Amino acid sequence: PAAEDEDIHTAVERRLAELIGPAAWKLHTGRSRNDQVALDLRLWLLEAVGTIRGNLADVQSALLQLAQQFSEEIMPGYTHLQPAQPVLFAHWLMSFFWMFDRDQGRLLDCARRTAVSPLGSGALAGNPFPIDRLALARSLGMQEISQNSMDAVSDRDFAAEFLFSSAMLSLHLSRFAEDLILYASPGWHFLELPEAYTTGSSLMPQKRNPDALELVRGKSGRMVANLVGLLTVLKGLPSTYDKDLQEDKELVFSSADTLALVLPALADLVLGLRPDPEAMRAALDSSILATDLADYLVRKGLPFREAHHLAGECVKTAESLHTSLVDLPLEEYLKISDRFDRDVKTIFDFERSVSLRSTPGGTGPAAVKDQLALAVERLHSYGYQNI
Amino acid sequence: PAAEDEDIHTAVERRLAELIGPAAWKLHTGRSRNDQVALDLRLWLLEAVGTIRGNLADVQSALLQLAQQFSEEIMPGYTHLQPAQPVLFAHWLMSFFWMFDRDQGRLLDCARRTAVSPLGSGALAGNPFPIDRLALARSLGMQEISQNSMDAVSDRDFAAEFLFSSAMLSLHLSRFAEDLILYASPGWHFLELPEAYTTGSSLMPQKRNPDALELVRGKSGRMVANLVGLLTVLKGLPSTYDKDLQEDKELVFSSADTLALVLPALADLVLGLRPDPEAMRAALDSSILATDLADYLVRKGLPFREAHHLAGECVKTAESLHTSLVDLPLEEYLKISDRFDRDVKTIFDFERSVSLRSTPGGTGPAAVKDQLALAVERLHSYGYQNI
Amino acid sequence: PAAEDEDIHTAVERRLAELIGPAAWKLHTGRSRNDQVALDLRLWLLEAVGTIRGNLADVQSALLQLAQQFSEEIMPGYTHLQPAQPVLFAHWLMSFFWMFDRDQGRLLDCARRTAVSPLGSGALAGNPFPIDRLALARSLGMQEISQNSMDAVSDRDFAAEFLFSSAMLSLHLSRFAEDLILYASPGWHFLELPEAYTTGSSLMPQKRNPDALELVRGKSGRMVANLVGLLTVLKGLPSTYDKDLQEDKELVFSSADTLALVLPALADLVLGLRPDPEAMRAALDSSILATDLADYLVRKGLPFREAHHLAGECVKTAESLHTSLVDLPLEEYLKISDRFDRDVKTIFDFERSVSLRSTPGGTGPAAVKDQLALAVERLHSYGYQNI
Amino acid sequence: PAAEDEDIHTAVERRLAELIGPAAWKLHTGRSRNDQVALDLRLWLLEAVGTIRGNLADVQSALLQLAQQFSEEIMPGYTHLQPAQPVLFAHWLMSFFWMFDRDQGRLLDCARRTAVSPLGSGALAGNPFPIDRLALARSLGMQEISQNSMDAVSDRDFAAEFLFSSAMLSLHLSRFAEDLILYASPGWHFLELPEAYTTGSSLMPQKRNPDALELVRGKSGRMVANLVGLLTVLKGLPSTYDKDLQEDKELVFSSADTLALVLPALADLVLGLRPDPEAMRAALDSSILATDLADYLVRKGLPFREAHHLAGECVKTAESLHTSLVDLPLEEYLKISDRFDRDVKTIFDFERSVSLRSTPGGTGPAAVKDQLALAVERLHSYGYQNI
Repeated sequence: PAAEDEDIHTAVERRLAELIGPAAWKLHTGRSRNDQVALDLRLWLLEAVGTIRGNLADVQSALLQLAQQFSEEIMPGYTHLQPAQPVLFAHWLMSFFWMFDRDQGRLLDCARRTAVSPLGSGALAGNPFPIDRLALARSLGMQEISQNSMDAVSDRDFAAEFLFSSAMLSLHLSRFAEDLILYASPGWHFLELPEAYTTGSSLMPQKRNPDALELVRGKSGRMVANLVGLLTVLKGLPSTYDKDLQEDKELVFSSADTLALVLPALADLVLGLRPDPEAMRAALDSSILATDLADYLVRKGLPFREAHHLAGECVKTAESLHTSLVDLPLEEYLKISDRFDRDVKTIFDFERSVSLRSTPGGTGPAAVKDQLALAVERLHSYGYQNI
Repeated sequence: PAAEDEDIHTAVERRLAELIGPAAWKLHTGRSRNDQVALDLRLWLLEAVGTIRGNLADVQSALLQLAQQFSEEIMPGYTHLQPAQPVLFAHWLMSFFWMFDRDQGRLLDCARRTAVSPLGSGALAGNPFPIDRLALARSLGMQEISQNSMDAVSDRDFAAEFLFSSAMLSLHLSRFAEDLILYASPGWHFLELPEAYTTGSSLMPQKRNPDALELVRGKSGRMVANLVGLLTVLKGLPSTYDKDLQEDKELVFSSADTLALVLPALADLVLGLRPDPEAMRAALDSSILATDLADYLVRKGLPFREAHHLAGECVKTAESLHTSLVDLPLEEYLKISDRFDRDVKTIFDFERSVSLRSTPGGTGPAAVKDQLALAVERLHSYGYQNI
Repeated sequence: PAAEDEDIHTAVERRLAELIGPAAWKLHTGRSRNDQVALDLRLWLLEAVGTIRGNLADVQSALLQLAQQFSEEIMPGYTHLQPAQPVLFAHWLMSFFWMFDRDQGRLLDCARRTAVSPLGSGALAGNPFPIDRLALARSLGMQEISQNSMDAVSDRDFAAEFLFSSAMLSLHLSRFAEDLILYASPGWHFLELPEAYTTGSSLMPQKRNPDALELVRGKSGRMVANLVGLLTVLKGLPSTYDKDLQEDKELVFSSADTLALVLPALADLVLGLRPDPEAMRAALDSSILATDLADYLVRKGLPFREAHHLAGECVKTAESLHTSLVDLPLEEYLKISDRFDRDVKTIFDFERSVSLRSTPGGTGPAAVKDQLALAVERLHSYGYQNI
Repeated sequence: PAAEDEDIHTAVERRLAELIGPAAWKLHTGRSRNDQVALDLRLWLLEAVGTIRGNLADVQSALLQLAQQFSEEIMPGYTHLQPAQPVLFAHWLMSFFWMFDRDQGRLLDCARRTAVSPLGSGALAGNPFPIDRLALARSLGMQEISQNSMDAVSDRDFAAEFLFSSAMLSLHLSRFAEDLILYASPGWHFLELPEAYTTGSSLMPQKRNPDALELVRGKSGRMVANLVGLLTVLKGLPSTYDKDLQEDKELVFSSADTLALVLPALADLVLGLRPDPEAMRAALDSSILATDLADYLVRKGLPFREAHHLAGECVKTAESLHTSLVDLPLEEYLKISDRFDRDVKTIFDFERSVSLRSTPGGTGPAAVKDQLALAVERLHSYGYQNI
């Protein structure tokens, strides 16, 4: 643009006139700034969503590759940050794959609602020339046109929907970062972060500050903020176009740019993770098999509620005798219920516990194998080739 | 629930035992609180979304009926709260129909992602009994099951998506309320609000405070807040189930309850609106036909940019001669461009101006008629019969 | 900074070494990045708050000058966008002065809590050298030091407090903008905006789009967003320094920059406002004196509740006789209450109505004169000279 | 209130009339609903803030008592969740005391700005009767009156300021909860939570889910949401009273109620914490004394930057020799710098390291003792007796 151009639209027109002559002055026929800026943001966003979906698929693909590589390692699964039941490391990894899969779905829905052309809505009242709005839309890669010109020039739902979908994605990234930060801390050490994504200190080279992941976690603040920003702008605005809507772009660009920065880094970080199966195994303790003890009794025919109660008794007895469930003598088990048998000790086997949970979506190796296959299908369903 | 019940799940079990005996204690087999509460909220929300979509369709239907009834009245269309071009009152009304149509789409997408059964995910690791998760899901009206148990017990995306869709809808309601408050104020008086939705003062009976609409506008605060509340809860949470997630319900209930209150009232309010076509007509002024003047020159063969410039000259000349565009003598027009002709005066006709904008989505009566027909189709496509 | 510098701190040190030699390498003694970045943001913010407070005082001063200049014009005061009682234009203007006065107070409190030096807190554990923290603080213009090093390195309360104070201020600006946009619209025309702050259209030169004010209103979205952004970052963060805190700067800079842009423009805009006292007067109607009618009866000895009821009867009677309160015959008044007397007609005088409200803070000219004097004092109390 | 009462104000009037006769009907003289509801919320909030400040002081007092009791235990201090330097457990505890001290300050400032009486502002224009507004204010415990009636009836800054102060406080509570959840997890076990505030499972009695703390953390979502809710309501509202403002109460009540629930529980929880000094000690490792090694060289006369570099060399050498800093032979130290001496081994003493940080605000026992004394003073300065 040159100094004398009123805005980007007249700048384009002027440049075109320099190139093709006076015919350029017809460019604006049947257009107005209001429908053009609405269209421009939609076109920009469609491209950005495409890029983000590709970058996100890279993260999902990285998770999948790591899960395929470490498909049998067992670690404690946590609820409330307390060890609860043994799970496959791969199962934990893949739990994030499916969060991101939902994000893919939301971004796709958002793109569908973005690919609606407002062109031909004029300033607010529509267009007085016999233009073919649908043909115009299709030439821009959009299959639909807006149905009401007054709505079309002020509709920023697609931008808000993108900001929400991005914020939701960033919260998944933040939760993943939180887990990685915890599992990389000395309290767990289930994995090591790639050096390129940690900051040592020249003074304390043993320190591996998870700076990159802390930034991923922190960036979710900006992403939620961008969403709130647009919602606040829209609140109470009179209908059709008001200049307030100009705020949309900075917010949309900020969220898109943040994801363009974070996602490729995270995909690379995941590929560089170094799991420590020994530390995972060391963190396993027979007390997290108490649920399996209850299930054992259920298989022996007890109702679940009673089995649950009796398994609790076993844990308490072991505690009072300062021993573990696995070392609790059979006679103690028998005192609690005559359903117990010599075979009770077979349950104290983390592999066995995990294997039992093989209904779809469970942590059993067979179920996880199916899960990994399904994940490959999902990636293909996005049109993703890089797997 | 009775005092000794640990929670709702054990209360249900106890009551069932009272009714059918010990078999009740098997109820919990293959379940856990974590997958059950996730399922319960999904079931509750699916029903709530159904109700909201119906209520919203009632609002859309009311808009449509009013638009059908007042399908030819012309009023000034505003951008920046400044009169810009004449539009049909029905076109303005219908601009909100399409905002709500997008809300219908988002709520439907949300329902689709909500109708995924987590049952069988256990506490976090999956289920050790050979239950048929898909059959269970279908018996509850869901066509899909979750693919990863660790994800399934902490997935609250569907709740956040509902809160976003509700917040977005509430912002549309807020914008509609803002327009109605303005148009009902003495400065415009394009319409009167039904008395049942205004508050007079015993002292000032002439006053019609638009209390109901101010509450609609104000309620959007709570709706945006509920969304932010859940996003804040999710931020940085470690994976799987944490008690923080319990906050989800109060927020979801609050947004659903607010819509259940606001939407039926608004549908009723719209049906009771009394448009004042004379006031609309009185607010029209030939200066808002300046765009038509430019279009006139385009039809005479001038490039748009030049036509635009010359029309501006006409407005300035009229201002400097203290007259209006319609009363500006033909010789003045001719001084500005020899393309002007006697027929220039035919453009100062609001009906004509509106009629010209008859490309799809425009404010021309023919286009609006098509729009109304399309709107009926949309309502039917939601399964809505009440039209 | 040069490419080989690790960060800004080492860049400063290197440059200092180039200037003064090896003594520069002692610069970091008793310091750490964590306490330095915390200090730096505090110093930056203290300066920014000073600038903002000055810019805000300019806006207040502009309001005051306009109020002094138009100190007797009467306009309808609105509640619910409905005319309620006559008020002085100056009183309406000054209502914003006091909102901004509270913003001054909050910014000052924020500055007080910002002027606390964390220097000497080290990375998190404190400082092993006998530095005099208070002397250091004072040399930087701060009167207090932090009391706990672990808290000091992660305390960003001052930044959040600034973002809240800024957001609150921006909402006041947004409400002011909303009033100005409405009062400048053709429905009111109580004032004209200075041309420099409106955008005409080359096509529709009569149009004065209040773009600047719409941007002021829209910018509040970004300001609320920045606050939410930092609160989201802080949520659930473990104590002491985490890299997430790095997000603080972008948010603080964004809010400060926005105000630095908006406030000077608004001060200038206010000075250029052209009130239209005739339009204000034309919008006055005797029905907005119904309250005065009730007050009349209170002065005649009736309890307020009864007086209120009887005044309502008068309004209804006038409506049913298709006349106004001022033209309603005395005998009709007497039918409603024998307390009415010939002097009842004296109340239909907007000047009189306004004058009666002369308790402090009221719209009576005497009270407003006191208010203006008090406002001058307030400006002086900020150390503001420009009045 | 009875069914026929219009609102709470007329209900009060009616009841008063039943008790004292017709004089009651004068009650409303010189008042209006708009200034009364503004006053009522202020009075309610002043009382609520008083209660909250007392409850918060109880939490601070609990922290102080625990810190006094465990005043010498050493634990690793973390940045980025990585061990950084040894600190006193009491120092870590007290870091939250000072966050809460700032919250006390903000709540006090908020109360000061809340204690401004709007009474006498009427509906919007002020009061026509010669009431003494200041005397009225003082009789209600307020020392100031509002200066502009139009501002006074719509000013909800005090409510927003309360919601911000509460949200900020809740984020401090959330950060404290996060630390406690981590330190109580098996990865750390620096402390045990009181059983009353954890939920075991009947099945897994060894599990201590920190439910209460997770709810504290989760509740911050609602608190941030309430703030955003009011800011959204206020955005773009025209001046004076609009019904939208009615939304203020639900939000304010929600935040106040949440704190009334959370703070007493947390005070009690802190008093019941059982620190595990052995686990803290076991988590200490000589590598976190690398900073002390650099400080040692500084004391020997080296510039900080060089000392820092050489200490880093020592850590690397120890790593490459698979030993620890404390076990690294003196000759290795001497190879790195001839400033090292036999006395270098004296620095590998956690007590010594902590003690050195005795400038004000540091973790040295002397500094912490001063800090505790200062904390007692602060509690007294709030008028708190319970210490």
